[in-house]
Amino acid sequence: MIVVMNGKASEAQIRHVQEKLREWGFGIHLSQGVERTIIGVIGQKKSGIMESLEVMDGVEKVVPILQPFKLSSREFKPATTTVTVGNVKFGGEKVVLIAGPCAVETEDQMLETAKAVKQAGASMLRGGAFKPRTSPYAFQGLEKEGLQILKSVSREVGISFVTEVVNPMEVELVAEYADMLQVGARNMQNFTLLREIGKINKPVILKRGLAATVEEWLMAAEYILNEGNYQVVLCERGIRTYETATRNTLDLSAVPLVKRLSHLPILVDPSHGTGKRQLVTPLSRAAIAVGCDGLLIEVHPNPENALSDGPQSLNFEEFRNLMADIRPIVQVLGRDL
Amino acid sequence: MIVVMNGKASEAQIRHVQEKLREWGFGIHLSQGVERTIIGVIGQKKSGIMESLEVMDGVEKVVPILQPFKLSSREFKPATTTVTVGNVKFGGEKVVLIAGPCAVETEDQMLETAKAVKQAGASMLRGGAFKPRTSPYAFQGLEKEGLQILKSVSREVGISFVTEVVNPMEVELVAEYADMLQVGARNMQNFTLLREIGKINKPVILKRGLAATVEEWLMAAEYILNEGNYQVVLCERGIRTYETATRNTLDLSAVPLVKRLSHLPILVDPSHGTGKRQLVTPLSRAAIAVGCDGLLIEVHPNPENALSDGPQSLNFEEFRNLMADIRPIVQVLGRDL
Amino acid sequence: MIVVMNGKASEAQIRHVQEKLREWGFGIHLSQGVERTIIGVIGQKKSGIMESLEVMDGVEKVVPILQPFKLSSREFKPATTTVTVGNVKFGGEKVVLIAGPCAVETEDQMLETAKAVKQAGASMLRGGAFKPRTSPYAFQGLEKEGLQILKSVSREVGISFVTEVVNPMEVELVAEYADMLQVGARNMQNFTLLREIGKINKPVILKRGLAATVEEWLMAAEYILNEGNYQVVLCERGIRTYETATRNTLDLSAVPLVKRLSHLPILVDPSHGTGKRQLVTPLSRAAIAVGCDGLLIEVHPNPENALSDGPQSLNFEEFRNLMADIRPIVQVLGRDL
Amino acid sequence: MIVVMNGKASEAQIRHVQEKLREWGFGIHLSQGVERTIIGVIGQKKSGIMESLEVMDGVEKVVPILQPFKLSSREFKPATTTVTVGNVKFGGEKVVLIAGPCAVETEDQMLETAKAVKQAGASMLRGGAFKPRTSPYAFQGLEKEGLQILKSVSREVGISFVTEVVNPMEVELVAEYADMLQVGARNMQNFTLLREIGKINKPVILKRGLAATVEEWLMAAEYILNEGNYQVVLCERGIRTYETATRNTLDLSAVPLVKRLSHLPILVDPSHGTGKRQLVTPLSRAAIAVGCDGLLIEVHPNPENALSDGPQSLNFEEFRNLMADIRPIVQVLGRDL
Repeated sequence: MIVVMNGKASEAQIRHVQEKLREWGFGIHLSQGVERTIIGVIGQKKSGIMESLEVMDGVEKVVPILQPFKLSSREFKPATTTVTVGNVKFGGEKVVLIAGPCAVETEDQMLETAKAVKQAGASMLRGGAFKPRTSPYAFQGLEKEGLQILKSVSREVGISFVTEVVNPMEVELVAEYADMLQVGARNMQNFTLLREIGKINKPVILKRGLAATVEEWLMAAEYILNEGNYQVVLCERGIRTYETATRNTLDLSAVPLVKRLSHLPILVDPSHGTGKRQLVTPLSRAAIAVGCDGLLIEVHPNPENALSDGPQSLNFEEFRNLMADIRPIVQVLGRDL
Repeated sequence: MIVVMNGKASEAQIRHVQEKLREWGFGIHLSQGVERTIIGVIGQKKSGIMESLEVMDGVEKVVPILQPFKLSSREFKPATTTVTVGNVKFGGEKVVLIAGPCAVETEDQMLETAKAVKQAGASMLRGGAFKPRTSPYAFQGLEKEGLQILKSVSREVGISFVTEVVNPMEVELVAEYADMLQVGARNMQNFTLLREIGKINKPVILKRGLAATVEEWLMAAEYILNEGNYQVVLCERGIRTYETATRNTLDLSAVPLVKRLSHLPILVDPSHGTGKRQLVTPLSRAAIAVGCDGLLIEVHPNPENALSDGPQSLNFEEFRNLMADIRPIVQVLGRDL
Repeated sequence: MIVVMNGKASEAQIRHVQEKLREWGFGIHLSQGVERTIIGVIGQKKSGIMESLEVMDGVEKVVPILQPFKLSSREFKPATTTVTVGNVKFGGEKVVLIAGPCAVETEDQMLETAKAVKQAGASMLRGGAFKPRTSPYAFQGLEKEGLQILKSVSREVGISFVTEVVNPMEVELVAEYADMLQVGARNMQNFTLLREIGKINKPVILKRGLAATVEEWLMAAEYILNEGNYQVVLCERGIRTYETATRNTLDLSAVPLVKRLSHLPILVDPSHGTGKRQLVTPLSRAAIAVGCDGLLIEVHPNPENALSDGPQSLNFEEFRNLMADIRPIVQVLGRDL
Repeated sequence: MIVVMNGKASEAQIRHVQEKLREWGFGIHLSQGVERTIIGVIGQKKSGIMESLEVMDGVEKVVPILQPFKLSSREFKPATTTVTVGNVKFGGEKVVLIAGPCAVETEDQMLETAKAVKQAGASMLRGGAFKPRTSPYAFQGLEKEGLQILKSVSREVGISFVTEVVNPMEVELVAEYADMLQVGARNMQNFTLLREIGKINKPVILKRGLAATVEEWLMAAEYILNEGNYQVVLCERGIRTYETATRNTLDLSAVPLVKRLSHLPILVDPSHGTGKRQLVTPLSRAAIAVGCDGLLIEVHPNPENALSDGPQSLNFEEFRNLMADIRPIVQVLGRDL
């Protein structure tokens, strides 16, 4: 941490900052520049110290030197983490394809979808039983019944599934059924939920919040890791910008950036990322090419009748075409599907 | 709702959309333009219909005509709602000043603050017992002990208080102690939490999410109203933009906009809105002048030692100066403090 | 400037950075932290140095200490600048009201408007002769004829006027007619235009770019000041954000922030800032209360027939009401209209 | 265009809107909904009409139906445009690689770079002679001397070049030297410049403005096309968002979106798009995979000594590695380098 004093800071003000820092147990490194005095702070960062310094008289700004995330950082753990769900491995050589509808609607819909996506080459099924919707009047999911459908279909077809949990009180319930949990974008900073998930032994996909920085996202992962659950897979799903031609702006730069900063595997969700069916396949190719560890694709037997997010869902044929489209790119990258 | 067919939509595609709409019980109004066919949809909007239409072949876009919020809209209830907490009234002639520290730290800190802000003219006390923090390593609040401190100080000094609730499982606990609940920006779309708050009989401040549109914010209020709790007060606290010179960008246009769209009272929080102590007073004047029903101001006996959000907290003297500064503006607007 | 070496930087890499800095004539201050080595750079900042450092092996980041703007900074010139246009003074005790239509359409329209806004208390007239429009098919202004109308109306009514210049080749032409020039938001970083304006002796309003940071805005002013024209008045007119309920998001925090950082006067344009007629008056009150030196208000005799920006224009009666509305706020702030 | 009347619009107000529309020569289609009256407007759109309608009493909103761009739209011209520069073709089967430094510094630097990038497989050279810089104190380019260097190097090595033009007065000068012009992000809405470029017969790269929507970008292209110059190539270079971990947010979804909306070729600039050398190669792979027609890559013999944008420049070896990295992806897409 570095404290930059403003141009008119008095001797007394500079002394006061130094005294406080010593009091808090830090070493100090004073540097007298031409127009500014700068105080280097040496020692382990403590919570709240930076903010206290910022309000002291004569202080212009405080500049952090170290990244705030620890357990999720590649500096802490240089080797890429692999997260295992049944026979699926995230963060390894294989690119993982997760496909399915936004919401679980009926057993038939799920059964049909599970079979189709498995046959097309997907390694995991997705489907929402609890749906966080902007409007209280929109379909909110089948809840427990949805979990039962997912479980039974998954066992019948032989494909693991991931499903979203939105309520800290339901983490155990969902974990009982699901092979993998998902935290949605709106809940990325629902710290109560993150802590509950951190306490159980179940892999989880943590989606990026729709206005979260990469740093805040890794700090959210830190909440789960810090409770003892290390099976975290990140998922970029588009951020909110001024552009309205797409539902969100898919930030593919975040993928190689996260890979440098963190050891956690990272997926991309081009369905939510673009909100437009016609853009899902080209952005899937791009996501693979940029180096992600897998994709989340919305697939519905009949998007026209979907109860949620129809416009961004592929039908079965479109999904098969997507698989055919990405396969050669996966291969030239030396990976596998 | 209006369905715009694309320029090359076939007769059959246009017919298919019309048939589906009739099937779903809607009236239809066909309009053949020079370059586009447009289908007006007449009837009560149903959830999911718009999305289903968007994926039909030949459809270019679907344009909603009605606003999605109902119970919170001024069209539904033309008279401004007043929300009462003890002898404080939100949405009336008086501008309500709520002041206090970001986090409850000790009984002494709260007692001293409560006395100082009451004497300076604040009508309500604030202080966080449960703190949602970006980092799991930052101070997370005194939790239940914080609530006890707030309650005892509030009773001793004779001033009501509002405090944040972050966990749906703790709504009842917090409501037991607090005079008014607060939903923070990060939880604006924590629908589980909103529904729990909707079920109890306790006033609540609903802060705008840091990347929420005004429409999404009113839809979040709708979640609470829809469960039966009508005592909702909105609070603008700055949105996330590309500008980094302030912590957030305080969107004061939202105040008169919300007043046109909704009957709910609305506050402004210039402390979080700017993140800078020196900007709190001018933005408080502006918030009053734009027509808000009250202010949330962070005040700490000693901002230098605050455990959270020090840089945006005023000390007692600064708060008294703020009160003196805004009083004449309150008065020329024909309101009162 | 501070150079932060990464955790694994070698001795040789640290030495290389130091050698380069010495070569470039800087003093050095080495600080060995627990996890990072930090190199303080002492001496006058030179263009491009920061970027060169950033690419050296072993460097994690480079942190600037000083603000990049000089001539526009309050550190450079502590006293607020006043800019004079005829009998109008920007940056003094008086709050300056500039009113008029977006575009000059006819002599009658301008004459009628000039009389009405002067009578209502405006001190300056505005009107565009050259209009930068998103579409090449939209009305682009009357050009030279518009300047002639503005001049003749201004002289007849006895009120100075400001008008936009969009083309570096037309700076002299516009300056010949106008009392004050305006650089629009889209041209804030049209450096050729800024330099041309810097070379003449004519006051200018520099609007904030629609995605410009406060720092970039002051750097744009720096281009004009650096050529020798010190008569620069800034104008906040809303920035682009994800929110679509208003045309732009008016950033009123920028006003007190700019007043701290710079000595230049600053106006607010709530017409472009909100894009909605009904929000112009409340945001004008707020802009005055936050401390701006004046307002730019769009006024049209008949907004329904305006050739540009009708939805945000006030008619004469609405403008008179706005004046009545803001007058008491101007007065309680100890200023005058 | 559709006019939505508000819920309380009177008969007289509805009649007034209809009369005005008829006066302006439009056909009308009235549709009486349950809660709203909607007026469909039939006929060729005229500039300013929409805005006039929006201010009429009783009107809630006006919804445009047609896209505002014409000449640049794929509806207008279904076949993809190819733009030819010497033996280079944009928009064809080949993916075009343009490489070179941000700024021309010396003849040696350019000669060395031209040879290296040509040998590595680039088909065109880039280099700035006129540099639009945020600070007036930063290196602004070698100007005319830079053009001469570019020309002589280009002829010696046998590689065409593109260079930026920033001043409408210099379009002819730059066009005399350059094989292709470039309009930078800051000048995307410099309409004077666009019109001048529209008048000459020279291919041009139009970069997306840093806060421009796709629609505004295509409208900027429209300015050039409308003057008669059809040789326009678009270039996505990242947009401004709240995320600060990268210099901009590269919006790769814009590529397939633009390809649907427009017939113009489109490039991607991952150097400016990310601002970080280490992200250029993965984002280049992604840009190819998403379907762009070419890349703009910053390459410098010695990024450490670059006078501009060093941190995002590759050295020769890194560029050769990038070429090797993208080649197989180009091939599996059935294209060529």
